[in-house]
Amino acid sequence: MPTPRKGNVEKISTEELTRLLVTPPLHQWLGLELKEAEHGRVVIRMPYRQELLADVDSSYIHGGMLATLADVAGDFAVITGVGFAVPTIDLRVDYLRPARPDMELMAEGNVVKFGRQVSVADVQVTGDGKQLLVARGLYSTAVR
Amino acid sequence: MPTPRKGNVEKISTEELTRLLVTPPLHQWLGLELKEAEHGRVVIRMPYRQELLADVDSSYIHGGMLATLADVAGDFAVITGVGFAVPTIDLRVDYLRPARPDMELMAEGNVVKFGRQVSVADVQVTGDGKQLLVARGLYSTAVR
Amino acid sequence: MPTPRKGNVEKISTEELTRLLVTPPLHQWLGLELKEAEHGRVVIRMPYRQELLADVDSSYIHGGMLATLADVAGDFAVITGVGFAVPTIDLRVDYLRPARPDMELMAEGNVVKFGRQVSVADVQVTGDGKQLLVARGLYSTAVR
Amino acid sequence: MPTPRKGNVEKISTEELTRLLVTPPLHQWLGLELKEAEHGRVVIRMPYRQELLADVDSSYIHGGMLATLADVAGDFAVITGVGFAVPTIDLRVDYLRPARPDMELMAEGNVVKFGRQVSVADVQVTGDGKQLLVARGLYSTAVR
Repeated sequence: MPTPRKGNVEKISTEELTRLLVTPPLHQWLGLELKEAEHGRVVIRMPYRQELLADVDSSYIHGGMLATLADVAGDFAVITGVGFAVPTIDLRVDYLRPARPDMELMAEGNVVKFGRQVSVADVQVTGDGKQLLVARGLYSTAVR
Repeated sequence: MPTPRKGNVEKISTEELTRLLVTPPLHQWLGLELKEAEHGRVVIRMPYRQELLADVDSSYIHGGMLATLADVAGDFAVITGVGFAVPTIDLRVDYLRPARPDMELMAEGNVVKFGRQVSVADVQVTGDGKQLLVARGLYSTAVR
Repeated sequence: MPTPRKGNVEKISTEELTRLLVTPPLHQWLGLELKEAEHGRVVIRMPYRQELLADVDSSYIHGGMLATLADVAGDFAVITGVGFAVPTIDLRVDYLRPARPDMELMAEGNVVKFGRQVSVADVQVTGDGKQLLVARGLYSTAVR
Repeated sequence: MPTPRKGNVEKISTEELTRLLVTPPLHQWLGLELKEAEHGRVVIRMPYRQELLADVDSSYIHGGMLATLADVAGDFAVITGVGFAVPTIDLRVDYLRPARPDMELMAEGNVVKFGRQVSVADVQVTGDGKQLLVARGLYSTAVR
């Protein structure tokens, strides 16, 4: 049995993490799914639904919804290490390519730094494995 | 009759701007409303709906949806000056206060700079008049 | 005598604020000057020096030095309200126009929100009164 | 002889890249050194000098100067692929740890996306190999 790395003590079970992800009304409506979770890293899937479309020609998914997915992925990456839900302080999103309706959308969040006051996470959202956006979020991890 | 300021020539009618706002499936689902529009500035309202909630206690609206609203407001502020829909290049959101379900949510977008390649807009989202977030977005205004 | 607004109690004297500004070696080298200061707002001047130039043709000031000036202005706007030096958590800068060597450079920092954990400030840097960049910074205001 | 990958044609020689780096007055004053360069990636060293200090106790390097270094690293990562100097459109910096005076400071810039209009680069600045900041910059790569 491997010795856990420093900071790798399990702060939250996958069951509880999943419950936090699927319970909020918006996450339910979006149908978010936790695909992978480990200390400081999650992968979340967002299925297609027609209401996500940004334009009348149904040609691409709204960037705001990709930002929402990115925010959630960064947030949950942080939650794996702190064990409780954390508010977003700020979020920055760079759009690289449009998200087409038939793409399989996945967001991977990785913690850059766990801090006592604030934590930083990097996120990439992919569509069929191609990078669609990169994001970086700051989350409040001060104990309340 | 006042002489229009430089750059103040009407590039898009309010009717066309409204059509661009209310036609996309996501905007329709959100029920976005154009409240004010002039050269370089718009005010957009996002009504409450239960699916926007971020938590099981129904205590606040999801930050991603506020970012979506902010993105739209920045985008449409830019559209008033260029006359056509523009893609978001990057977006940065600072969350100041939680958005409660009973708040009247409004986003005001103001163009900081109209550029030939890219344009910058500032946005604030208010709830019952109180500042909930500030955002800044960069939009691609290169003529295609 | 007017009743001070909530949070408007003087946390730091202009003398102490000036001392904090002019003492650090980098600020000295840059020759930063405090031109105005009130609760939540400062104006800081950065004089020209040849080492600030970004290119061989001496045509413009390096963007990094404008970001430095913006960071300082945001920081000192926050200091007016908390009374002590605060570390920058993150900084975002949008460049609007190049800074020419003969321009009078001024940065105005305004606090958007004083928070217990973090505070947000907006900054604009002008050259001869024209907006050259806008920036937004997040500063750690948790009491140590 | 290997077939160059698409986009991997040498757009600029290491000699010319070095000349662009060491010629500007600010870069000279900072003593910036090009340590590594390949398509889409550079490593740049910034040596210590006393004027970079942020505080009277000489305990850490000014964040603005680290942002300057990050900006240059992102910029030069982009230059490797476009072959000419490019202006910064926006820059975002997250500070993770203070930079101590005795640390060996290195910035690594990696291009996230080469675009026809704009390009995105990620940067990390390390001190003695420890991550001090992460940054992301947007650069104008429209052909003039």
